[in-house]
Amino acid sequence: MSSHKLCMIPGPIEFHDDVLQAMATPATSHVAPNFIPILGESIEMLRQVLFTSGQPFIISGSGTLGWDMTACNLIEAGEDVLVCNSGYFGDRFGECLETYGAKVTHHRVPVGEAPNPSAVAELLKTKKFKAITITHVDTSTGVLADIKAVAEAVKKVSPDTLVVVDGVCSVGSEEIRMDAWGVDVVLTASQKALGAPPGLSIMAVSERAIGVFKARKTPIPNYYANWTRWLPIMNAYEARKPSYFATPAVQNVFALHTSLKQIVAQGLEARFAAHKEASKKVKQACADLGLKLVPTGLGHAANGMTAVYYPEGVVATDLLPKMAAHGVVAAGGLHVDIAPKYFRLGHMGISTDPARPDVDATINALKESLAEIKAAKN
Amino acid sequence: MSSHKLCMIPGPIEFHDDVLQAMATPATSHVAPNFIPILGESIEMLRQVLFTSGQPFIISGSGTLGWDMTACNLIEAGEDVLVCNSGYFGDRFGECLETYGAKVTHHRVPVGEAPNPSAVAELLKTKKFKAITITHVDTSTGVLADIKAVAEAVKKVSPDTLVVVDGVCSVGSEEIRMDAWGVDVVLTASQKALGAPPGLSIMAVSERAIGVFKARKTPIPNYYANWTRWLPIMNAYEARKPSYFATPAVQNVFALHTSLKQIVAQGLEARFAAHKEASKKVKQACADLGLKLVPTGLGHAANGMTAVYYPEGVVATDLLPKMAAHGVVAAGGLHVDIAPKYFRLGHMGISTDPARPDVDATINALKESLAEIKAAKN
Repeated sequence: MSSHKLCMIPGPIEFHDDVLQAMATPATSHVAPNFIPILGESIEMLRQVLFTSGQPFIISGSGTLGWDMTACNLIEAGEDVLVCNSGYFGDRFGECLETYGAKVTHHRVPVGEAPNPSAVAELLKTKKFKAITITHVDTSTGVLADIKAVAEAVKKVSPDTLVVVDGVCSVGSEEIRMDAWGVDVVLTASQKALGAPPGLSIMAVSERAIGVFKARKTPIPNYYANWTRWLPIMNAYEARKPSYFATPAVQNVFALHTSLKQIVAQGLEARFAAHKEASKKVKQACADLGLKLVPTGLGHAANGMTAVYYPEGVVATDLLPKMAAHGVVAAGGLHVDIAPKYFRLGHMGISTDPARPDVDATINALKESLAEIKAAKN
Repeated sequence: MSSHKLCMIPGPIEFHDDVLQAMATPATSHVAPNFIPILGESIEMLRQVLFTSGQPFIISGSGTLGWDMTACNLIEAGEDVLVCNSGYFGDRFGECLETYGAKVTHHRVPVGEAPNPSAVAELLKTKKFKAITITHVDTSTGVLADIKAVAEAVKKVSPDTLVVVDGVCSVGSEEIRMDAWGVDVVLTASQKALGAPPGLSIMAVSERAIGVFKARKTPIPNYYANWTRWLPIMNAYEARKPSYFATPAVQNVFALHTSLKQIVAQGLEARFAAHKEASKKVKQACADLGLKLVPTGLGHAANGMTAVYYPEGVVATDLLPKMAAHGVVAAGGLHVDIAPKYFRLGHMGISTDPARPDVDATINALKESLAEIKAAKN
């Protein structure tokens, strides 16, 4: 498709042809023998991707729905939650938690910085927190949180606190070892490094968190997001039995299944390495162009995306349409404090394959667009 | 695809090739200039399909999410809701409403019967109901409710009561004139007579109901389903402007758009007539085979599906696999009182096109399967 522009935003990302083909699977009943194993195997493969024996959920909805599922199933009104807030998505997750009655304390860090495990430890000493949430990669800043270090701090200071990771922009691109690191919830969506089109809210929940959920004292204040209804469905599909609560997004699940098979076949270690390699290339190119990253250090910059300030005198309306004219779609700023000052590039999933031109094409589009802007000003 | 079996269940239904092609649209940003009008036009076309000037919502999720959106946005805790309950989906909608604090009164009718407008009028006199819900076509029984008559009864007895129609199994196959009939909410999903794959929760809400929503006194107890967040998004897409709350299911919206264009091009009157014609053919074939419909009268039988009892001595495990072997997927029973005794056929969307073999193939598969079962018993 010659008119197709490379989608190099931090999600949705470029899809493999086989994934698109799966999206076009002809009409199939959600309880048909050819669909049941597709959802069942997807649940199983998610465990491999997240290194967990916990319970995956694959549900029709946006990634945002994962916030509701976490809040309404695990938190009871009046309970305290600590939100590690590195940008837009920390603010929003906090709002969602408050909707369900949580008392939210924010561990806010300056734009471009990552949550501080020592500061988290100090905050955890101030009161009993039911859960702590961490945005693994804040899509608004490109900051990568050290969830392993934060989870360790939690374990030392407040071991009962549930560790919740918003992995919307990290699952499939950044290392997550749920069980080994003591992470209780990872929530994500289909359209980022899991390599499928948007439309699926995806989670994995530790046995411990499922226990906390089952032991809750108050009713769950949500119908669609209630795990009581979804647990038997997920168990049934995994046991290869038909079951019904709400019609799953059959074609999207076929697409996710196709992408998960590719991810598992590639191997997670190789996948993490490929994302690091692509990221290094993009960030080096930005440095060579004299551009400054939003993350304040490379040690806490995401490997699946890059958030970078415009050079002096360049704005979104200059750069983004020029890049699009060069065949590459990049994203504008999202963090309210700096939105007009920076832009974002995604480099996830198949775009990290060195055999594909995506990363080089993106770097070239950026270089040429900046050169054109400079030339026009002279 | 020679191995494809016709999907003749009451949703998901068969998709037009162009719809499947749209599902395989390459990666596209949810705020890209080629996507914004797709969602914007879909919103506009939904108004045509439902004969309304109200506010459509197109959101990533299952049809079930429409219950949550109705309950959490329009009902405040302690308010009374009257649920016209003709089967499985009345029970479930009632549960959803109670989750959000509604006091639910059920107008229950025997299996196979439709809600009774006079009984509804009497019930409406007993107390102040904030809303009444009607399952237009109960997918569990194939019963078609006379929503026009019920809405008229409401208007006479309790004009402030909001009229909510669960149109999951009726929008696109049964006549609905939202504004003329005084219907305040129609909720549906993408995978039935709207002709697109599952994955989208779709609604239209009257200006009056939006007013009630805006005048509510208590906070909305849900984050993802909160119209406060979605209204500006729908307005932005309709104004062809980028906007973000949660990433829409881009490919599913492309598919919905393709199907809606076909529906509008066909014309709603022609579409209703085509569904009536297909339904007549299927129901006549059932009568010819001596099979008894679940609806107690043809006057309140759906035009997009048929629920029919097995003949004496035949069970699901006999009939459904045989039909599948003849290339047609039918659905088992869902209504808890009679589940093992009946089966369900869908005849919606492109399957009602007389140029397609779907309806005849379904009737033939049914006939031949029953004959085989009879022969095996003799």
